[in-house]
Amino acid sequence: MEDKKILCIGLVCLDIINVVDKYPEEDTDSRCLSQRWQRGGNASNSCTVLSLLGAPCAFMGSLAPGPVADFVLNDFHLYQIDISLLLECPGCTFPASMVISNVTSGSRTILHMNRNLPDVSAEDFSKVDLRQYRWIHWEGRNAEEQVKMIQRVEEFNRSAAEKERITISVEIEKTREPLYQLFPYGDVVFVSKDVAKHFGFNSAAAALKGLYSRVRKGAMLICAWAEKGADAMGPDGIVVHSDAFPPEALVDTLGAGDTFNASVIYTLSNGGGLQEALSFGCQVAGRKCGVHGYDGIVPARA
Amino acid sequence: MEDKKILCIGLVCLDIINVVDKYPEEDTDSRCLSQRWQRGGNASNSCTVLSLLGAPCAFMGSLAPGPVADFVLNDFHLYQIDISLLLECPGCTFPASMVISNVTSGSRTILHMNRNLPDVSAEDFSKVDLRQYRWIHWEGRNAEEQVKMIQRVEEFNRSAAEKERITISVEIEKTREPLYQLFPYGDVVFVSKDVAKHFGFNSAAAALKGLYSRVRKGAMLICAWAEKGADAMGPDGIVVHSDAFPPEALVDTLGAGDTFNASVIYTLSNGGGLQEALSFGCQVAGRKCGVHGYDGIVPARA
Repeated sequence: MEDKKILCIGLVCLDIINVVDKYPEEDTDSRCLSQRWQRGGNASNSCTVLSLLGAPCAFMGSLAPGPVADFVLNDFHLYQIDISLLLECPGCTFPASMVISNVTSGSRTILHMNRNLPDVSAEDFSKVDLRQYRWIHWEGRNAEEQVKMIQRVEEFNRSAAEKERITISVEIEKTREPLYQLFPYGDVVFVSKDVAKHFGFNSAAAALKGLYSRVRKGAMLICAWAEKGADAMGPDGIVVHSDAFPPEALVDTLGAGDTFNASVIYTLSNGGGLQEALSFGCQVAGRKCGVHGYDGIVPARA
Repeated sequence: MEDKKILCIGLVCLDIINVVDKYPEEDTDSRCLSQRWQRGGNASNSCTVLSLLGAPCAFMGSLAPGPVADFVLNDFHLYQIDISLLLECPGCTFPASMVISNVTSGSRTILHMNRNLPDVSAEDFSKVDLRQYRWIHWEGRNAEEQVKMIQRVEEFNRSAAEKERITISVEIEKTREPLYQLFPYGDVVFVSKDVAKHFGFNSAAAALKGLYSRVRKGAMLICAWAEKGADAMGPDGIVVHSDAFPPEALVDTLGAGDTFNASVIYTLSNGGGLQEALSFGCQVAGRKCGVHGYDGIVPARA
């Protein structure tokens, strides 16, 4: 059990982060204060954080060959993330997102690449040896396929001994109708502030009360709300809350949500309770906002 | 003589070109129409064009190892540019410039990386076997060192047979005071519209008349002025002019200046006159503005 991994399925991309002190005006030449390359993508970021927290983890997603692949592969290795399930996609383009991070205003402007990388399919997933994993997390993307993958895990769980069962979590971050079919499929469902607002809710607590009927019986629904912290609701119907833990100075919010998700999964997968998981998630996400990238987000362990 | 190369000394960098149909507003997420990676840098771009025009050419500049170097090296090879004078710089960061190219307005917004790559020094240049080159072009950067390099070539020329002499050209593109010491050092001096305006001139012809006293006796001073074409003045003091050759649709102006310079150098190095060189420069640069990148800028030869 201890050796089993947490698997995150979703996107890996390259974020090229350009730090400026003034947002560039159109048709001008200007100079960055600094530039850094960072492996990105929600599932890929959550793996980074799980690994930093000390949980064995694996990433599944597709990768296109090219000049960036080496950088990304090397970074996965650096963080000791198992990438044996990585799908190679010859002929595809590796997605790079440009981020303009303005230190004066704190704004971050993202220019996404149109990607032609296929998402992980149920067919790809059918080859995965499930006995290696104790938790599988899906970043909501190609929901129809993802439902089939989850059903395979549910099937596996029905015939598995209790201690062999795999916990299922899903993240519904983007406001895209097809993703909402994922609500009834997780033991743990992360719903974003964006999606909550899209449904007309103006607080995490309201979103939980309004959306809980969509999740399956016994599931936990979790909603983080930036500087307002995060709320969660389990089968008892009680809303638990954690305040945010803002850093002294807001340095870099990119990936804060992925950090929160990973820290919650980490706590729950180690037998922690919902309140504990929420607080830990908010703490680590807060620390993340105070540093560039991810190093330094984990508190020294006693 | 025929086998001798044109050497361009200056910068190679990576341009990541993000094509959009609307310039991104600060603090938003948006999607590119396309993204491409392109070897960039003025001297490096001019080599690309020289090579496409059929002139044997070489690039000298520094390169940092890393995920981008392979892409850049491969691209130099693709265009058959001699890179035997490339200086490796371990521990340096490879500069990547981010370009936002707006197809609706034709604008190009460039965010330069702060680079820590050393420029080519007079010491580096002292090891170059000058007999291999018939023309050496400097992209004005570390002018003090560049003056020493040029003096070495002048020294070489004084003792060389006429047909062995190397033509010297310099480009003064950026409005930086130290670069202006390069004016008296080229047989051919390219001065940019930006620099001309910085000196208070409002047309290429006015700039030539005002700045010609700075160049050495017998030199040619050339100034391109975007859609107004380009002007040049030789030792006879007569301003020659070529109109621009705008493409049917403005697609990509990045590197148009480097294309102009290369096409002028190409013509002059093959014995063409100043008027012919200017017209050819404007033609090829115009064609360049009608295509993405550089392929397709060379007219089919009869």
